[in-house]
Amino acid sequence: MNLIDYRSDTVTLPTEGMKEAMMQAPLGDDVLGEDPSVKALEEYAATLFGKEAALFCPSGTMTNQIAIRLHTQPQQEVICDKRSHIYLYEGGGIAYNSFCSVKLLDGDRGRITAEMVSDAINNPNDIHFPISRLVSVENTMNKGGGAIYSLKELEKIKAVCQAHQLKFHLDGARLFNALVATGESPATHGALFDTLSICLSKGLGAPVGSLLLGTKADMQQAKRIRKVMGGGMRQAGMLAAAGLYALQHQVERLAEDHARAKLLGDCLRACAYVEDVLPIDTNIVIFSVGKRLATEVVEKLKSHGILAVAFGKHEIRLVTHLHISDEAIAQTIKTLPTLY
Amino acid sequence: MNLIDYRSDTVTLPTEGMKEAMMQAPLGDDVLGEDPSVKALEEYAATLFGKEAALFCPSGTMTNQIAIRLHTQPQQEVICDKRSHIYLYEGGGIAYNSFCSVKLLDGDRGRITAEMVSDAINNPNDIHFPISRLVSVENTMNKGGGAIYSLKELEKIKAVCQAHQLKFHLDGARLFNALVATGESPATHGALFDTLSICLSKGLGAPVGSLLLGTKADMQQAKRIRKVMGGGMRQAGMLAAAGLYALQHQVERLAEDHARAKLLGDCLRACAYVEDVLPIDTNIVIFSVGKRLATEVVEKLKSHGILAVAFGKHEIRLVTHLHISDEAIAQTIKTLPTLY
Amino acid sequence: MNLIDYRSDTVTLPTEGMKEAMMQAPLGDDVLGEDPSVKALEEYAATLFGKEAALFCPSGTMTNQIAIRLHTQPQQEVICDKRSHIYLYEGGGIAYNSFCSVKLLDGDRGRITAEMVSDAINNPNDIHFPISRLVSVENTMNKGGGAIYSLKELEKIKAVCQAHQLKFHLDGARLFNALVATGESPATHGALFDTLSICLSKGLGAPVGSLLLGTKADMQQAKRIRKVMGGGMRQAGMLAAAGLYALQHQVERLAEDHARAKLLGDCLRACAYVEDVLPIDTNIVIFSVGKRLATEVVEKLKSHGILAVAFGKHEIRLVTHLHISDEAIAQTIKTLPTLY
Amino acid sequence: MNLIDYRSDTVTLPTEGMKEAMMQAPLGDDVLGEDPSVKALEEYAATLFGKEAALFCPSGTMTNQIAIRLHTQPQQEVICDKRSHIYLYEGGGIAYNSFCSVKLLDGDRGRITAEMVSDAINNPNDIHFPISRLVSVENTMNKGGGAIYSLKELEKIKAVCQAHQLKFHLDGARLFNALVATGESPATHGALFDTLSICLSKGLGAPVGSLLLGTKADMQQAKRIRKVMGGGMRQAGMLAAAGLYALQHQVERLAEDHARAKLLGDCLRACAYVEDVLPIDTNIVIFSVGKRLATEVVEKLKSHGILAVAFGKHEIRLVTHLHISDEAIAQTIKTLPTLY
Repeated sequence: MNLIDYRSDTVTLPTEGMKEAMMQAPLGDDVLGEDPSVKALEEYAATLFGKEAALFCPSGTMTNQIAIRLHTQPQQEVICDKRSHIYLYEGGGIAYNSFCSVKLLDGDRGRITAEMVSDAINNPNDIHFPISRLVSVENTMNKGGGAIYSLKELEKIKAVCQAHQLKFHLDGARLFNALVATGESPATHGALFDTLSICLSKGLGAPVGSLLLGTKADMQQAKRIRKVMGGGMRQAGMLAAAGLYALQHQVERLAEDHARAKLLGDCLRACAYVEDVLPIDTNIVIFSVGKRLATEVVEKLKSHGILAVAFGKHEIRLVTHLHISDEAIAQTIKTLPTLY
Repeated sequence: MNLIDYRSDTVTLPTEGMKEAMMQAPLGDDVLGEDPSVKALEEYAATLFGKEAALFCPSGTMTNQIAIRLHTQPQQEVICDKRSHIYLYEGGGIAYNSFCSVKLLDGDRGRITAEMVSDAINNPNDIHFPISRLVSVENTMNKGGGAIYSLKELEKIKAVCQAHQLKFHLDGARLFNALVATGESPATHGALFDTLSICLSKGLGAPVGSLLLGTKADMQQAKRIRKVMGGGMRQAGMLAAAGLYALQHQVERLAEDHARAKLLGDCLRACAYVEDVLPIDTNIVIFSVGKRLATEVVEKLKSHGILAVAFGKHEIRLVTHLHISDEAIAQTIKTLPTLY
Repeated sequence: MNLIDYRSDTVTLPTEGMKEAMMQAPLGDDVLGEDPSVKALEEYAATLFGKEAALFCPSGTMTNQIAIRLHTQPQQEVICDKRSHIYLYEGGGIAYNSFCSVKLLDGDRGRITAEMVSDAINNPNDIHFPISRLVSVENTMNKGGGAIYSLKELEKIKAVCQAHQLKFHLDGARLFNALVATGESPATHGALFDTLSICLSKGLGAPVGSLLLGTKADMQQAKRIRKVMGGGMRQAGMLAAAGLYALQHQVERLAEDHARAKLLGDCLRACAYVEDVLPIDTNIVIFSVGKRLATEVVEKLKSHGILAVAFGKHEIRLVTHLHISDEAIAQTIKTLPTLY
Repeated sequence: MNLIDYRSDTVTLPTEGMKEAMMQAPLGDDVLGEDPSVKALEEYAATLFGKEAALFCPSGTMTNQIAIRLHTQPQQEVICDKRSHIYLYEGGGIAYNSFCSVKLLDGDRGRITAEMVSDAINNPNDIHFPISRLVSVENTMNKGGGAIYSLKELEKIKAVCQAHQLKFHLDGARLFNALVATGESPATHGALFDTLSICLSKGLGAPVGSLLLGTKADMQQAKRIRKVMGGGMRQAGMLAAAGLYALQHQVERLAEDHARAKLLGDCLRACAYVEDVLPIDTNIVIFSVGKRLATEVVEKLKSHGILAVAFGKHEIRLVTHLHISDEAIAQTIKTLPTLY
């Protein structure tokens, strides 16, 4: 049986064109700042988002954690939604890497608002409290079913940040999904944030790597943090070449993933055992299965050749990506209603 | 005008008997383990709670923070209510001192349940998550209006902790208020927890100091943590003598504080500008003032000679203690209804 | 047998005058900034040293650790002598509390020079290295036998610090010994450093406490760090009153300790089993005992009623202080030559 | 002018055979534990060194830093030579990532002895000191001119570690140089240490990556630490395939680098401006240039087409590697004597 793998868009493999680009890439020692392919990727991405500089790192966890460390000092506080990747899935890194506390908000499908942020800021004169210092949002919001932030709300949050001298970071692991879905430009979003973290290894299909974007001075300091975290890579140019190829050739096709996700959602809404399906904005489908345990339903799906992940006690996530074809969708849509 | 100070039971001053005890106290260098008065206090408290050993520290923040560090390792997680002193009021210490993440629960008046704890434990095999390691409860719960935990629920939480190899800590800054109100014994509570933090400088009336209680081995390690935090004091015996006096002579009178708090509550419930008064279990009264800003009402109270603290945007806290007499209560009850 | 205790000047007990001052001290809640005795001490000390503000803490380890944290950020480096108290005896606090690396110098009797500091500064553009940020000196230098820094060298170090944007901290646990010995003024030394840590519980004879001195802004931030370390004390005024008494009445008599230490040194130099005695500048006598183990000689001394501490494999330290009388010195001088 | 690049063996580029291996590598998501090429590399290396398991990471800094964190707890101490890479060149990571102090020894060309280690262990009962916990050695020792440890001394250090419950880590960034030079086996060295860090991107010529080797349980915990540091890579298989190729085909040729380094050393010893050349055990040549500044001589070399790095105020390092041919050596030997 051929497995259809909806577990994550991180499972994507390099395409032939990407592999070709990797083999042709000129290389050097990036720890010495001499890998031309890494430089090319960093410059391309910085320009695309209208930022001064970029830093290539082995993972999105690293770019996020570097950003948090970059903007904060020990005993300060990060404001984010309680479903954020930076809080939930990065190994406790906010405390471990940055010695910072968290103020956890509860936004609609994980999207916090300017008003929530405003209410969450600690009184800076009371030494009992950590000093509020950084607001971090995730767009699209993974745990909210790939939910997209409205540009208007982001602008309002930015205004609150500026009024209170807070830094503003984007975990943009799947930002390109939002951009493709809304038609907004990278530069529009680049202008909103002090730093942006962008993943090349999810829907974009590169094998390894993420980018942190920001000012030149911040990226210089980020390089120092990357060093202590062990993220400096020698001839990273091959990976960078794959990333550059992804940015240049594999962005627009995300629209296909979104269309396919919607088909899955329509199908699931009609299944009796499905209690609820979150609205589908991009390539992530989250549905709940009532009293059934998610782990049990995931096993059942697997026995039918469909790989998914439990995403809570009674919730399941499916993600569409590069290797999910129309045929796979058709096959899945045939299977789902027959599950129970 | 004579101010009636309800801001906190931390404002209490040493009584004459206590001062006498302080002057008579035999002293030594406690960093060398040679202060007999410190030893006497530590032994008295350990015996009282049925624990092997105790450690005298300058504050309850220090005893809590030492306990958290003692029980955890970096990249682990502390489970507690979102209103906990350890999370809210200790300067971001969980992240700063222990490099640990937090899982914040939402209990009734800040009192978490065994079921909540059970649901909050992370899957220890998934490296994305911090390892759940410590459960901390606060009794009485300050932000919950001096709410008392039921012994039965504490026993259930302990069972969950034991089943999942979690440590169990009590922030007992005001534990004696709970014990006096319920008639439960120190030893009954001592048996529930791996460590207990007890404050001598709140309702008990000693000028400075808190105790951490636990096993001998844990207290030996706690001493090492106290050292790096700078909490080792030389001739601490005077402070310890005050603490011992408090434990021996000033516990039972907490019942008076509780009775007086109830009188305040009854009065407030009848005031038109008061929207709600939390149930009053001990010496803390928390009431909300509808649309009015707490800071504004606190100012108004002050202009009438009554000191209180804002405890949220629209909430105010009053605390009864050693220096709040029946006359002060009578005076307050006359004033409160006239405020608006 | 009456023991003569040369182990440390930290063993001193409050004098009658000091006890009297403690009992008379007006008190308040210092966490709320309302203890008049703490305020009086902080203001007195700040004025004495010509600094804007002071902060009263439970120990010199805490004032040092707060200063290090105050001046540095994680991934930076502290430059100090390898015999420094901050490196050797504070429980690994530079790494634990401040996440900073150390550059260890080897000065004459622990006194580093401006040239050493200059050579030790890391290239700030090389991300492999921690950024050099803080120079800390100890005066008198305990491990160097109470050695006194020359004012001229301190001024040169300060110039190096200013040229390289380094902060300059003094661990002045025994600074008053240096001031009494040289006749230099507190204000002269206050002007040299960004922060000074001064102990009240050593030669000065107060039971508990140290002061951190610096700018108003730095002390405000220091208060925040003291909070997270658990160093905020409630009615600390009694301790502060003892400290103020010490500063006002027990400084000049340090000269007697110095004279007595010299007598001990003269005696030791004439003992056959003594290999070397470090020059004696103040109240500390360090001598080495050749092939003999220090621990063994310390035992021998104890059996003759003299308490000392091993200070290395073959070194022993004696400290004179408030409770070491002329009679005790005479008795010791009679005993020492008879030891072996 | 064709530059001859002796700056580091990290500048090596993938060979054709290696590139071929990379393109053929089967891939998967290594964060999900599903990359077959990563698994193959980890298993090959673990078997080679006789350890239970291995973990592939983006850099040797990461494998070292993970090992330090793995073996220690905050407030403990790492014992190592003062020239160690882990202390000097990893961004202050011992303090930042592990909250640990350092005890710095001064070994012959950076090679510490069992006796030094034994003398450096802190008294575990004295709470003033960090607890000694980990001994780390570097073989070959970069700052000691590629110096090789004697197997016998390593065995003695291991015995001291076992007697004092210390962990023993190897920074084996260039261990294969030592093995090729001595003919000792990987398994012999694997048996000595709790963990070994091995770099694939130095003399071995792989573009990116290092391995940490140890017990299964330790590597499971190491994976958790790698996660929080951001070192988890998705389709890391291409990099792993290059590493496996390096281990299988590019180890023996290190002997050529060593022979060439000796030729450089002989030449330098005869140059008038060279004060001293460290003994040459492997592929590293360190020479000193008397009163001349190293940076100035490095510039001079560059103007003659030879790249080197300053390695101290008056010391210079040359490293031979995959891209340094016999012709390059001949050319260099012609040039060096003509420099001044």
